[in-house]
Amino acid sequence: MPPILARAEDVQQPSRWTIEHILSIPEIKDVAVSPADGSVAYVARRANLTLDRPDYELHLVSADGRTDRIFARSTWLDRLRSIPNSPDWSVLADFGHGVQLYQVSSHGTHRPLVVSSVTTLVGSADGASYGFTNTVPLRFGVVSYDWSPDGRHLLYATLETKRAARKVSTNEQVTAASAVRRWAPEQIVRYFLRTGSNPALPVVTRSSDDKIARYLGALPDWGVDYLDYGIQGDDRNDPQVQRLRFDFRSGRSSPAPIGSAANYRETVVGPHGGTLGVARVDGVRRLSEHLPDGQSIDYGPTTASLSDLRSPGNWRSPDGAFAIVAVRLNEQPRYALLRIDRGGATKLIQVPESLTHCAFTPSATDGVCVREGVVMPPQLVRVSSSTGAISPLHALSGPFASVEPLRAEARTWTNDLGYKATGFILYPRHYQPGSRYPAILVTHGSDADQRFGSEDLQWSYPVQLFAEKGYVVLLVNAPYPTQSAVLEEAIADWNACGDRLPPRELQRRIWLNTLEAFKSVVQQTSREGLVDAARVGIAGYSAGSQAANVAVTQADLFKAASSGDGGFLEPASYRYTSCSYRAVYGGPPGDPAAAANYAALTPSYRARFANAAILQQVAEPRPGAIDFFQALRAAGKPAEITLYPGETPASDETHLFHVPSNRRLAMEENLEWFDFWLRDMPPPGDQSERRKRWEGMRQKPTAGPLSSTSHP
Amino acid sequence: MPPILARAEDVQQPSRWTIEHILSIPEIKDVAVSPADGSVAYVARRANLTLDRPDYELHLVSADGRTDRIFARSTWLDRLRSIPNSPDWSVLADFGHGVQLYQVSSHGTHRPLVVSSVTTLVGSADGASYGFTNTVPLRFGVVSYDWSPDGRHLLYATLETKRAARKVSTNEQVTAASAVRRWAPEQIVRYFLRTGSNPALPVVTRSSDDKIARYLGALPDWGVDYLDYGIQGDDRNDPQVQRLRFDFRSGRSSPAPIGSAANYRETVVGPHGGTLGVARVDGVRRLSEHLPDGQSIDYGPTTASLSDLRSPGNWRSPDGAFAIVAVRLNEQPRYALLRIDRGGATKLIQVPESLTHCAFTPSATDGVCVREGVVMPPQLVRVSSSTGAISPLHALSGPFASVEPLRAEARTWTNDLGYKATGFILYPRHYQPGSRYPAILVTHGSDADQRFGSEDLQWSYPVQLFAEKGYVVLLVNAPYPTQSAVLEEAIADWNACGDRLPPRELQRRIWLNTLEAFKSVVQQTSREGLVDAARVGIAGYSAGSQAANVAVTQADLFKAASSGDGGFLEPASYRYTSCSYRAVYGGPPGDPAAAANYAALTPSYRARFANAAILQQVAEPRPGAIDFFQALRAAGKPAEITLYPGETPASDETHLFHVPSNRRLAMEENLEWFDFWLRDMPPPGDQSERRKRWEGMRQKPTAGPLSSTSHP
Repeated sequence: MPPILARAEDVQQPSRWTIEHILSIPEIKDVAVSPADGSVAYVARRANLTLDRPDYELHLVSADGRTDRIFARSTWLDRLRSIPNSPDWSVLADFGHGVQLYQVSSHGTHRPLVVSSVTTLVGSADGASYGFTNTVPLRFGVVSYDWSPDGRHLLYATLETKRAARKVSTNEQVTAASAVRRWAPEQIVRYFLRTGSNPALPVVTRSSDDKIARYLGALPDWGVDYLDYGIQGDDRNDPQVQRLRFDFRSGRSSPAPIGSAANYRETVVGPHGGTLGVARVDGVRRLSEHLPDGQSIDYGPTTASLSDLRSPGNWRSPDGAFAIVAVRLNEQPRYALLRIDRGGATKLIQVPESLTHCAFTPSATDGVCVREGVVMPPQLVRVSSSTGAISPLHALSGPFASVEPLRAEARTWTNDLGYKATGFILYPRHYQPGSRYPAILVTHGSDADQRFGSEDLQWSYPVQLFAEKGYVVLLVNAPYPTQSAVLEEAIADWNACGDRLPPRELQRRIWLNTLEAFKSVVQQTSREGLVDAARVGIAGYSAGSQAANVAVTQADLFKAASSGDGGFLEPASYRYTSCSYRAVYGGPPGDPAAAANYAALTPSYRARFANAAILQQVAEPRPGAIDFFQALRAAGKPAEITLYPGETPASDETHLFHVPSNRRLAMEENLEWFDFWLRDMPPPGDQSERRKRWEGMRQKPTAGPLSSTSHP
Repeated sequence: MPPILARAEDVQQPSRWTIEHILSIPEIKDVAVSPADGSVAYVARRANLTLDRPDYELHLVSADGRTDRIFARSTWLDRLRSIPNSPDWSVLADFGHGVQLYQVSSHGTHRPLVVSSVTTLVGSADGASYGFTNTVPLRFGVVSYDWSPDGRHLLYATLETKRAARKVSTNEQVTAASAVRRWAPEQIVRYFLRTGSNPALPVVTRSSDDKIARYLGALPDWGVDYLDYGIQGDDRNDPQVQRLRFDFRSGRSSPAPIGSAANYRETVVGPHGGTLGVARVDGVRRLSEHLPDGQSIDYGPTTASLSDLRSPGNWRSPDGAFAIVAVRLNEQPRYALLRIDRGGATKLIQVPESLTHCAFTPSATDGVCVREGVVMPPQLVRVSSSTGAISPLHALSGPFASVEPLRAEARTWTNDLGYKATGFILYPRHYQPGSRYPAILVTHGSDADQRFGSEDLQWSYPVQLFAEKGYVVLLVNAPYPTQSAVLEEAIADWNACGDRLPPRELQRRIWLNTLEAFKSVVQQTSREGLVDAARVGIAGYSAGSQAANVAVTQADLFKAASSGDGGFLEPASYRYTSCSYRAVYGGPPGDPAAAANYAALTPSYRARFANAAILQQVAEPRPGAIDFFQALRAAGKPAEITLYPGETPASDETHLFHVPSNRRLAMEENLEWFDFWLRDMPPPGDQSERRKRWEGMRQKPTAGPLSSTSHP
């Protein structure tokens, strides 16, 4: 495909946020920088409204930032890299033969590097394996790859469906089958090593149950004549990570030497070549580097998280003088870079907003990041790790870019339990000090941060449009665990099946603590005269749906709620989260020893306490969400559940909606829902079904739905 | 296909029951008799072990009973009829073009009568609609048909997939989506009337949600120049049946005159042409006929059920002198015919076992039935409705027929609440009076009756083999509701969402009453010296699984249980049975007003009380069954759940297993399970996984399974 000039930005009047503008916000997936000429490649995911699906674009920005050309479009682009010692790029892409590995020249031509003739369906569809792809079902040949630092060796993995015999399944296998809506074939991941033009050597073959093999590219560490890689033990209940060493000459794997870090994450490397980590010492979180010989180097206290998955990265200067780590600052909350010198000095490289998606040359001196903020559209910037200088390179284009920025204010709230929660106040467009506004609190764990229109936080909640329509929007995080060993203990216990804390204490430190944070946000913004506390709504999906469902069944803080694609905390989820549930509830539903714990937290068990109108939007008919809906209806509470469909009946919408028309409709539904319950504005259409239904709910609480009798 | 002589029966020594013999038992689906020459056609469903699926055979038995020829084999044969005023037969069959309507001559040749070019997938598979077919997924063109009494008119229905727009679904639609494991397209049923060689007239088009249109052939009643038919209102929560009249000349439908019975069943017609029914008058169940003019004719008390679905039938002599109704005798329990004379006299036409699958000529004088019993293999018999004479016509062949019959004894037990339960004792092959035997109680509502190897009762429980292996087999029904207005009230209340009885009282009259019946069976057979009360197991699927799960969590009666494909009574089932659950539990799970009712009956909530080892065999990973399994494991009880697969990952085994290899494995598993827990016999294979697992369970109760953490 010949290079195409990216959309030129029309010179026009600043506009106001609409759903179209929100849909136009691109998601940057990958950035790479060429050490040869300083040009920058990036992958952007954008809504293709014509085809009603996401498209991926491969862009090349010239070194001077003046031109931004689209080299390729595809239903999938991933793992964009600058090929070591080459002016070209490599990327996983689907150019009509399933997802394979391609080499892209600086002229925009591409040629296949690795093509697997066997491809396998991945996505939320009958017969597809789940792949965290959040898009249409796709066929994958190659799923991951990595270059050796000198570019001589290529490690890559193919995905294949295992021809499985029809078989009777037992116990845990049956339980696992009940956890999925669509059946998936068994799959295997095959790793190969290719050196120059030699035939590829098989490295290892793993079941796709091995999360390190399937999703983490085997976490390779390159030696000169060997490769260390990770695998995950097959026992899903107590997965063990092992490190193996593949010798290039023998073509065999053996256990890696002790010291090769067995982990689920890429190792974050410090200037000495050791492993960087943050641990609590005497109550203070400190950054340190652990060397293979057992030595440890302390770099002092830090509030940052290293190489957060939302903006990962770690580079080390070849001489070991310094290392750069992408960090998340939990107290702010935003993203930056941390330079760590061999001598022990550390320095934040930062902007008032965030630096995300950074990429550095092998020298670790010259980098490129995306600069973005909660109200600042993304732009590429150059970063010098030597001087810390940051200079604009190129602003991303699109309708969103022409909207006059809203006003946002970063805040930290301390709740009555003494824990801090961070977030932002997004002001109504024409904010009049002294007036009180209806408000919508939007939450998703820790995703209220300095990123622009992040779907991680705002999902199908059109926060910018809420602000245009006269709402105060409160983007609020749960209290961050790193502020206290007490909270960290609770999270650790939750992940470890709850051996240490009584369930009620764990509930208190996690969900009720978050609710206390919401209380302090509403009380404080109300005290300031900003928010009308009688007209506050809450919106959150996934983890945020837990927060929303707990909030409305524990307190009279919110008048309306929109809860997205959740169901954890409902007894129906015990079936496949029994480990978690031991921590949260102390046992299975119906166990008398656990009954008080369920009664204390389970949203559907507390339906009678709800004083909010509760909308649930789901990507699949999740049992827990439906149970909550039915319990609310049975208790006479206004409740609605809406299922957004996949491309065909054989596939589903994904947890993060990928179908643009679904996202549009869901955003409209949310706006109408909050307008109806917080501002008495009926949904459009005098005779619309929705209006009739909602007005009916408001007048007379709905009786529980009766479904026809069947007794299987 | 040329006629094939059916398997000749080898002359051989009587043999003993094996799983092979059980698998060889045919299921008779339809019988028809030719008024022209007295020949008899029947459809038998048999396990095809080579292809591992059920096959349907169309047999023709000569009038003298000497030859039994197979005219056709197919994956589906249904609705076999003698074509009025023709020597030929009609039948729905799949001869390679989906299920269509065929005419079969007395020479065995067949030609299509109606072929719908559009066919639709039916079965337990992705994209298939559920169709009560209990076999491999099939494509259907024609789903039902009926001849006018003179054979001039043919009413038939085709099934088509509706091309549905992708759409967002809401509330009850979302709930419905959560109730199915496989997605199904929306479908429509089109009814047509064909007269002679004229083009077919469209009669009515209905959604397949209309159960009368989809499953009951529209319940036609033929007039001379019109046709009355039924439809079911679209509102699933309160379905209304309407009767419409299709006028042959105008080709239009209009409401049928008052008096046309709006019902979910075919009308049972009496000698006067009115509707026969049984109703309780002054506490006594009486048979009466209701005439269109409002008059009612009383035929006296009866204990029978009319035209039971397991052996339906009703014929009226053309002159109205008498009517014949197939009946089920609830107190026995077996099937017979009831002759009702215009003068008011009634007479049972019966054998000591059962007469099932009867068919009469239009004169209602000459009939054919299947004579069968709990230990008597099926044979065709001729029945004269005038004299009541019954004469043998032809015995069905197969390996099962050569087994020396076991000894069975019909029994009625009265429980401590005063209610009677019927059933049979099947004695061990070499029963020694004075010895006590381990016993297995097999139950499924009311299906312990005089039928031979009925899968309705014995499912994958090899009761004949249990008896060969030295078990006393107790085939036991739940107390039959017709014995008491108190029990009938409970069933009615259950079906009507529980407006009348407190849930605990309903529980007592249904499940606990059944448990009391089991107690009386075990106590009495133990008192008789027949059964060793310390070694009794229970097996039941579907309704029987409710009985088994309740039994083991309420009483110490059984040491082992096999519970098949159930899940009703578990909170997970509330999602799609909220109407029933209002009757059984008084509200949704977690509702404090309902909590005591759940605690009193829900098997998983009572897991800690179980003193039996509980195996669950399922056709799908049913949430309720898995919840019970997990609760048992969490409570440290021996528990196992086994999922039997469909043909491919895209389809499921059916509620009544249709895959012969699954049925075989499930029967073996049941035998091994009971042998292990009741007789200390290990499953075969010293080192088998099963043996290791079961012995581990016996030694040390298993801890709750830990599944990996995920927080959607």
